[in-house]
Amino acid sequence: MNINQRLEDLREVMRREHLAAFIFPSTDPHQSEYVADHWKGREWISGFNGSAGTAVVTLNAAALWTDSRYFLAAEEQLKGTEFQLMKLKIEGTPTIAEWLGREIAAHRHPYEDWTEVGIDGWCSSTSSVKDLIADLRKENGITLRTNFDPLRQIWAGRPPIPQSPIEIYPMEYAGESTHDKIARIRQSLRQQHADGMLMAALDDIAWTLNLRGSDVHCNPVFVSYLLISQKSVTLYINKEKLTSEVSAYLKAEDIKVEDYEQVKDGLKKYFEYNILLDPDEVNYALYEVVRNKGKMNDLQKTEIVEEESPVKRMKTVKHEREIAGFRSAMLKDGIAMVRFLKWLKPAVEAGGQTEMTVDQKLTSLRAEQPLFRGISFDTIAGYAEHGAIVHYEATPETDVPLKPEGLLLLDSGAQYLDGTTDITRTIALGPLTDEMKKVYTLVLKGHIQIELCKFPSGASGTQIDILARQAMWREGLNYLHGTGHGVGTYLNVHEGPHQFRMEWKPAPLVAGMTITDEPGVYLAGKFGVRIENTLLVVPYKETEFGKFLQFESLTLCPIDKSPILIEMMAQEEIDWLNAYHQHVFDTLSPHLSSDDIEWLRTACAPLSFQ
Amino acid sequence: MNINQRLEDLREVMRREHLAAFIFPSTDPHQSEYVADHWKGREWISGFNGSAGTAVVTLNAAALWTDSRYFLAAEEQLKGTEFQLMKLKIEGTPTIAEWLGREIAAHRHPYEDWTEVGIDGWCSSTSSVKDLIADLRKENGITLRTNFDPLRQIWAGRPPIPQSPIEIYPMEYAGESTHDKIARIRQSLRQQHADGMLMAALDDIAWTLNLRGSDVHCNPVFVSYLLISQKSVTLYINKEKLTSEVSAYLKAEDIKVEDYEQVKDGLKKYFEYNILLDPDEVNYALYEVVRNKGKMNDLQKTEIVEEESPVKRMKTVKHEREIAGFRSAMLKDGIAMVRFLKWLKPAVEAGGQTEMTVDQKLTSLRAEQPLFRGISFDTIAGYAEHGAIVHYEATPETDVPLKPEGLLLLDSGAQYLDGTTDITRTIALGPLTDEMKKVYTLVLKGHIQIELCKFPSGASGTQIDILARQAMWREGLNYLHGTGHGVGTYLNVHEGPHQFRMEWKPAPLVAGMTITDEPGVYLAGKFGVRIENTLLVVPYKETEFGKFLQFESLTLCPIDKSPILIEMMAQEEIDWLNAYHQHVFDTLSPHLSSDDIEWLRTACAPLSFQ
Repeated sequence: MNINQRLEDLREVMRREHLAAFIFPSTDPHQSEYVADHWKGREWISGFNGSAGTAVVTLNAAALWTDSRYFLAAEEQLKGTEFQLMKLKIEGTPTIAEWLGREIAAHRHPYEDWTEVGIDGWCSSTSSVKDLIADLRKENGITLRTNFDPLRQIWAGRPPIPQSPIEIYPMEYAGESTHDKIARIRQSLRQQHADGMLMAALDDIAWTLNLRGSDVHCNPVFVSYLLISQKSVTLYINKEKLTSEVSAYLKAEDIKVEDYEQVKDGLKKYFEYNILLDPDEVNYALYEVVRNKGKMNDLQKTEIVEEESPVKRMKTVKHEREIAGFRSAMLKDGIAMVRFLKWLKPAVEAGGQTEMTVDQKLTSLRAEQPLFRGISFDTIAGYAEHGAIVHYEATPETDVPLKPEGLLLLDSGAQYLDGTTDITRTIALGPLTDEMKKVYTLVLKGHIQIELCKFPSGASGTQIDILARQAMWREGLNYLHGTGHGVGTYLNVHEGPHQFRMEWKPAPLVAGMTITDEPGVYLAGKFGVRIENTLLVVPYKETEFGKFLQFESLTLCPIDKSPILIEMMAQEEIDWLNAYHQHVFDTLSPHLSSDDIEWLRTACAPLSFQ
Repeated sequence: MNINQRLEDLREVMRREHLAAFIFPSTDPHQSEYVADHWKGREWISGFNGSAGTAVVTLNAAALWTDSRYFLAAEEQLKGTEFQLMKLKIEGTPTIAEWLGREIAAHRHPYEDWTEVGIDGWCSSTSSVKDLIADLRKENGITLRTNFDPLRQIWAGRPPIPQSPIEIYPMEYAGESTHDKIARIRQSLRQQHADGMLMAALDDIAWTLNLRGSDVHCNPVFVSYLLISQKSVTLYINKEKLTSEVSAYLKAEDIKVEDYEQVKDGLKKYFEYNILLDPDEVNYALYEVVRNKGKMNDLQKTEIVEEESPVKRMKTVKHEREIAGFRSAMLKDGIAMVRFLKWLKPAVEAGGQTEMTVDQKLTSLRAEQPLFRGISFDTIAGYAEHGAIVHYEATPETDVPLKPEGLLLLDSGAQYLDGTTDITRTIALGPLTDEMKKVYTLVLKGHIQIELCKFPSGASGTQIDILARQAMWREGLNYLHGTGHGVGTYLNVHEGPHQFRMEWKPAPLVAGMTITDEPGVYLAGKFGVRIENTLLVVPYKETEFGKFLQFESLTLCPIDKSPILIEMMAQEEIDWLNAYHQHVFDTLSPHLSSDDIEWLRTACAPLSFQ
């Protein structure tokens, strides 16, 4: 991969188009977090393959912005290229606009004063483009061009848009029919004074239509748009993906089907008074299609209601059938994890295991479980200092043998037809340093404080987040990623809009939501610790001060007790851990062999002062 | 006070003006929290005298929105009037726009279809009016008129705008000269790409100019505007308020003086390219003046930069001289509080004391202290069930005798020339119920958890707030007010924008800020508990994860130990209380008589299991 040659090809196009810079975000026309290869333009131009990052190329320089999860990985991958790494949320890091302002001013050509910057409006959300326009305007009036994609000219062998087939998601797991979901969406739109909406988020479309695909690695979604008005629903999709069964199902649900590329035309012919476009979800190119209606004589103007899509929150509150599916998936995942953990330490002691081989072993144990459909994200198996790379993925080049000492951070999950799992355990493979034990105990305390939290219905994850951090903050430690995210039902492992985060996430937590609890600490060059369960929001009590909620751990897997410094634990934390382990043992043991039960009995034995 | 007659007078004006409703917010042209009598229009029309509330009057109905602090007080004060109470943040309470939408639709006249609502644009912030316009538009297109004030016609005997004299605030306490402050403001404006700003917040103007007034009860501010450009600074004020000393000082600082009413003209003649107007601070009438420039041929257009005023945050980070002043003021306040608390219980046992008499006693003890200038807000002395009225103010009608039993909630503060104080203690006057002890202990635990908090520099109060609530949430208890606010330096006792709150307050906490820590629980009809210290944000430690901060209690006064259920306290909470009491004893005792020292020794003795 010759990144610098690609940059030269790009700059040739930029000079022809009189563009001072081009910006490559990491997403697709649907604002997906993980995208099909066709849309991995930022990776192609920069070589950096993390899920989040923005590459910016000027005629004289190149830079890549990413967050703390990827600092170490990005540094590695950008080596030998022109790209300099810009660390988000670190003091002194300029914003993209600030950097462009400085770079363009510094290299201004005496005769040709180019101050236009490009970005592909199809692969950028409406809100991000609007913010960028405003930020650039402050930098000596830099303007933004959004209707041009240089990759069409320079990316030889660009993969096509994926065409994987689609299947119907059974009511047994979905719980609510498409008919009923669309009725609820329309009701919600009326409350927002909107006549219709364009749905672009692939998981929202899959949830609404009770369909699943496999266009994106680990995410059972399919590339499409859904246009809902008060009278009709139209799915824009490559029709080759539809089996006769799915076509018949869509017809029965009264959903029209049009070609994927026809969505622009569909918006032009949309005849209601207004339409809801979620500016964080709908790309800027389609937003412009609607905004420019009425400017030409042949088109009726359509007012835009810029609000959050109602589907985002509806989808996160699980139906009782979905919750039952989660419990079933977690049971299977727990069985696979217990078999894996029982195998792990003797296997490492016997020798020959690496980060990649233990990942393969775990996946093979999960694959034995009924309704297994694949992994829900690329496993993070980070041994020793690799554990400090938050989103590390072992490759043949980076893979290391596991020794019977130190910590292995293992973040993994599976897609089962009845539910999606996401679990992190940090495992002592042998003797640990005092620092490892202390950090492990601080992370565990944070994890447990979230598990113990009680809160009024409607509180936000921003309010709760500190409970995972207070113990480590007292020691001057922190982690810069969020503490938790929603999990889809046989859908994307990251589901919003609710989260536990230091940043403001106003989405209220309500009963029926899933959310992970995954604090961590990462000491670069040494080790990393993260402990994660997936939780369900459930009722706690109702008083004169309103409804209160609490969390129930859905994940069923012991937490390694050997690194715990018990004198650092509060009694309520020890009590929680012991009760959780008892619950794990009681739930899993009926499904295990007697050998596995014996191992689990020890793993789940109460923690107490020796 | 005949509220219903006033409503009839108003409605006569409304009919003449074809207005379907009129809205009376609680603020003044400067967005003050506490306003001069001249601007107490909402109180005049409704009879409700709380600091926060909005009255809305249609041709057929009247309603008043206020928050939980005032629910009980408002219910009392609105009795016998047409006004119905609308409880903010309670499920089922409509917004003002929703209520107007319903009321106006229900009483639509068959011929005269009035759908215009009025509000005085001078007494409403730009952002609140913009939000209201957007919300009303959704309610069948109701429109808003902002250029008409009916109170000019119907409020007989309306008090004039206050004309109290102004004094110079000495550098000894201010620490930074006006010259330097204005230089910093201009630098900040340049960073925000703004050429100037209109300052309307009275405390910001007082801070910037190192001047103090007494136009508003308890707040040492003076009614004025300050227009800053890159070249000049103009104070709009009634010139009669300026002594020759102050006039000479302003002249020396190169600050022009114009009449208060000339501010509109000043904005029209402002000739820079753009101006920063903080939409939460500048009223809509003045915003419209700037926005409409350029629409007439004789005026140059001025771009508006709508961002937060830089002065808000600058003012909250205290200069070392200001911090020294706070320490001095807190010492004096602590001496007065100790003398008061020593006196209180025997006085109550002796009989004849009421909520009002103990308030008078406390104020007289404070008045003995050097540099005392008055109270910083109206004392809240709420005995027994009055303690559950969050912003209770005893009046001759409500005053009750204090008995040697139950809880007295006492929230008070003083203005000293060197600093402002704000302290709440809840005091056991005799035997308590188990419920009182439990609630008291939960509130104290919340208070202490904030005191113990360590956090990265730049964290927001929204993140930290839960530490004060988690213990009570586990018991299904809560309070709906914020947990803390900034405190000015011989200025307003409520200072923003940083706060501890459940709602999002993005203002980052940085070293040098003051903030109160005042969780509470209020059981209507029974009692209330609140415990408040004023804290200073100070450095904690610096690690590879950045700068960490902690709090230092500035308030010096024992916390009543007798209601504490020690078995509910964590060891770290007991340790904090004992260390705090030792610090209070060590700091105050050198300034006390031997009698007072003996009382304080007992009050500050360590808490331990009997």
